[in-house]
Amino acid sequence: MAYTIEQIAQALGATAFGATDITVESVAEPAVAATDQLALAMKPEYAEQLSQGQARAAMLWEGADWKALGLEAAIISPRPRFALSGLSAMMDPGQGWATGIHPSAVIAEDAELGENVSVGPLAVIGAGAVIGAGTVIGPQCFVGAGTSIGQGGFLREGVRIGARVRIGDRFVAQPGAVIGGDGFSFVTPEVSGVERARQTLGDQGDVQKQSYARIHSLGSVWIGDDAEVGCNACIDRGTVRDTRIGNGTKLDNLVQVGHNVVVGNDTLLCGQVGIGGSTVIGNNVVLAGQTGVGDNLFIGDNAITGGGTKVLANIPAGRVMLGYPAMKMDSQMEVYKGLRRLKRLFADVAELKKTVSNTVQSD
Amino acid sequence: MAYTIEQIAQALGATAFGATDITVESVAEPAVAATDQLALAMKPEYAEQLSQGQARAAMLWEGADWKALGLEAAIISPRPRFALSGLSAMMDPGQGWATGIHPSAVIAEDAELGENVSVGPLAVIGAGAVIGAGTVIGPQCFVGAGTSIGQGGFLREGVRIGARVRIGDRFVAQPGAVIGGDGFSFVTPEVSGVERARQTLGDQGDVQKQSYARIHSLGSVWIGDDAEVGCNACIDRGTVRDTRIGNGTKLDNLVQVGHNVVVGNDTLLCGQVGIGGSTVIGNNVVLAGQTGVGDNLFIGDNAITGGGTKVLANIPAGRVMLGYPAMKMDSQMEVYKGLRRLKRLFADVAELKKTVSNTVQSD
Amino acid sequence: MAYTIEQIAQALGATAFGATDITVESVAEPAVAATDQLALAMKPEYAEQLSQGQARAAMLWEGADWKALGLEAAIISPRPRFALSGLSAMMDPGQGWATGIHPSAVIAEDAELGENVSVGPLAVIGAGAVIGAGTVIGPQCFVGAGTSIGQGGFLREGVRIGARVRIGDRFVAQPGAVIGGDGFSFVTPEVSGVERARQTLGDQGDVQKQSYARIHSLGSVWIGDDAEVGCNACIDRGTVRDTRIGNGTKLDNLVQVGHNVVVGNDTLLCGQVGIGGSTVIGNNVVLAGQTGVGDNLFIGDNAITGGGTKVLANIPAGRVMLGYPAMKMDSQMEVYKGLRRLKRLFADVAELKKTVSNTVQSD
Repeated sequence: MAYTIEQIAQALGATAFGATDITVESVAEPAVAATDQLALAMKPEYAEQLSQGQARAAMLWEGADWKALGLEAAIISPRPRFALSGLSAMMDPGQGWATGIHPSAVIAEDAELGENVSVGPLAVIGAGAVIGAGTVIGPQCFVGAGTSIGQGGFLREGVRIGARVRIGDRFVAQPGAVIGGDGFSFVTPEVSGVERARQTLGDQGDVQKQSYARIHSLGSVWIGDDAEVGCNACIDRGTVRDTRIGNGTKLDNLVQVGHNVVVGNDTLLCGQVGIGGSTVIGNNVVLAGQTGVGDNLFIGDNAITGGGTKVLANIPAGRVMLGYPAMKMDSQMEVYKGLRRLKRLFADVAELKKTVSNTVQSD
Repeated sequence: MAYTIEQIAQALGATAFGATDITVESVAEPAVAATDQLALAMKPEYAEQLSQGQARAAMLWEGADWKALGLEAAIISPRPRFALSGLSAMMDPGQGWATGIHPSAVIAEDAELGENVSVGPLAVIGAGAVIGAGTVIGPQCFVGAGTSIGQGGFLREGVRIGARVRIGDRFVAQPGAVIGGDGFSFVTPEVSGVERARQTLGDQGDVQKQSYARIHSLGSVWIGDDAEVGCNACIDRGTVRDTRIGNGTKLDNLVQVGHNVVVGNDTLLCGQVGIGGSTVIGNNVVLAGQTGVGDNLFIGDNAITGGGTKVLANIPAGRVMLGYPAMKMDSQMEVYKGLRRLKRLFADVAELKKTVSNTVQSD
Repeated sequence: MAYTIEQIAQALGATAFGATDITVESVAEPAVAATDQLALAMKPEYAEQLSQGQARAAMLWEGADWKALGLEAAIISPRPRFALSGLSAMMDPGQGWATGIHPSAVIAEDAELGENVSVGPLAVIGAGAVIGAGTVIGPQCFVGAGTSIGQGGFLREGVRIGARVRIGDRFVAQPGAVIGGDGFSFVTPEVSGVERARQTLGDQGDVQKQSYARIHSLGSVWIGDDAEVGCNACIDRGTVRDTRIGNGTKLDNLVQVGHNVVVGNDTLLCGQVGIGGSTVIGNNVVLAGQTGVGDNLFIGDNAITGGGTKVLANIPAGRVMLGYPAMKMDSQMEVYKGLRRLKRLFADVAELKKTVSNTVQSD
């Protein structure tokens, strides 16, 4: 798919300079760009690489002198990273899948498929499932009984969605994502050691050998519009009501969302984040990679965690947190500095003790 | 499936009150329960929500005054969370799958399927596999050559079980679970930096560029009765003998169990827990979400860890542990308090040094 | 498959002793070995177990007195763990899959399959894919359009590889591995709270409700020769260029590699390791289980991390690191010791303050 520099700039709401009728077929990093590629050099530090490549045109940072960079044409956007979103959508070559319903797919007779739905080879669609117009169910996907998926969705290969899940429009799911597994919910006949240790913060009392009985998940999963779920990520069913993921919320690979969790709108859960059962997470939250959140907690709107943060208590709205246990990021940084000087502190105190002891004795 | 309040109470060994011939079709949270639903209000804090919903009957906490709550009938159990287990099993609508062997499944001629085994669409069952009576092999599952699964099991969609795995009765596996992947076991021709760093606790000596040779996993996996494995969780094969998971042990989503690991009975491994190779974990242990356990360690019976705990050394039986590195929970809590006061401590010591220095000089 | 002790020793470059014409059919741990099994007792601590088993022959540690151990034959290797690699390859019974192309596989007409390629039941191979000679595509695998896999590869059941991925020779992938999911890359129209918090190290300023736009991944994934990817592990596509995994590099189960990441040669990423986007990792690196590495970082050759390490800054070549945040292992050990004595330190300082205060007053 070839576009002129002019067409691209218009689509992105950016400004085109120079020979704007040059056409490009794809994008590339500046050092390896060919003559028919648009080089992406959206920060000044990429300037030097431009001279190593063959690009005639580039997307540049605001204020860049495209002529001095040896280019024939340029696109400049005030927020180039945002422009990249539109550009990448234009240039995406996709997965190369055929459209239509593959004859090897196993589709229940009473499933309802909207207009222009595609179903890939060896996919399974269960009884009473409803798939909205234009949605693509990829190869080897599974859609459970009574599940509904909105319009314009895209399920990559091997996505698995259990029964009675409800998902909004423009849903994206990466390979191997699982939605609607049973919650991890077990109970012992008598009060367990964990229940006691939670109450006492550490003392489980006299322990007793007990086996677990299973609490079945009767709820399902509800997901809003414009959500995305990463590779091999998991969202469990609720116990009585549905587990909920809000509009515009994105889950990265290998994220775990426990039963009954409620995640708000426009929230990002990065790679390998885990959310314990019944926790509530607000809107516009960002939890960085490997963040863990205990069960039955509350995280307010706009909260942010740094990578690896372990959240053992509620987080108010707007807080930026880091560490294990999670503290405000600036306090945690102070702690980290302190830890690096801890050996010195022990030495200082030992020295002081000696000095003071001598001083007191010599008095 | 409709039940009277009387029938439910009898099945749960609980007590029914009021108009016990009222029938309910499903359960709901109190605030949204309809007239044909049983409201679940098993703690006093749910009392208020009952008045917002339409339920005529509810499951309540011990000592609740059901009449004052405006109900026509009630079920009261001394341990309502345990009663919920039985109730949820009665009310579970299931996944809505057809029974029997789907014609699209690929089943080896010499596989042995017990009475009333169901095999879903596009599942694969390998040579010599043995499936016990009443077990359900879900859509798109894979069961390897020579693998046996006991009676009454339930494998959700897309579960993958390798060759020669032996699994007991009433096994439950969630979508995407993998049992019998190869162990992560590689060796360099000469002693490696990691081997040296382990011996010296940090010094790997002169490092040398080496490639790895693969140690094949010759063992398989053995799983007892009543075990459950979560979505996209992984249990690796043993090197020489089998990796072992005991009776009644439950693994949550995205849990990783390395090669040669032995897990005892009635143990819970919560979401994203990881167990390094050859580690031995006792009975009735609970490892909370994102706990990590190093390789070749030992965790005693009834041990408990808090969320995110990183276990770098053996844990004796009955211990409640927290943090990175794992300490007894109460000691770790003390450490956390100390960290919060660390800045103040540095200031105190600096002040002391000044005072003592002045005092000594003025002597 | 039966081998004589002589044959095994020759294949491994080890030395055979005693009745080297004894044949063995498989290997076993010493305590449970039968007469037709080779016992593995490669450390002196296994000596005692030998007497419990029935083995006539064993693989022993250097210097072992095989006659005194009651054996009829023995194999001794200077580095027995390395010898185990060759031995395990000889003795591996494999997955028991049929060779050839299963009729239920869905293979694009223009896909190119080399000599002796096997494709398992219900696998899907996309348009223009190229599979090298002798490679096995397991049951229910997916290979995307335009993807190439080299010679002698082995893909276990349910592996998923997206479009345009390029993989070298002798590739091994465990069940459920996903290669070529889309990168987790989203951008807000205006500068976001996370972008501000990164600049200020904790202060996100005035937050503003914004939704995310998706940055499509236009790159794919490149993997060298002799690489291995674990169960349910994930490697994301690059944004513009390919994500890269070097020759001889091995990823364990549930590992997450973000978009644009570059991993060098002969590097091990152990279970549940996560690597943030655009990070560069050198050659011969070992990241232990649950290690997390932030985005846009650099880890030098031969670096090693301990289990659970959270890497928030670059690591120079050859460093051995531990903890959260990552420090040099010996410094971190000092910190851990300090934390255990922290309560005592607070008490000492409190005592000192009292003493000094009294001393100063009494002056």
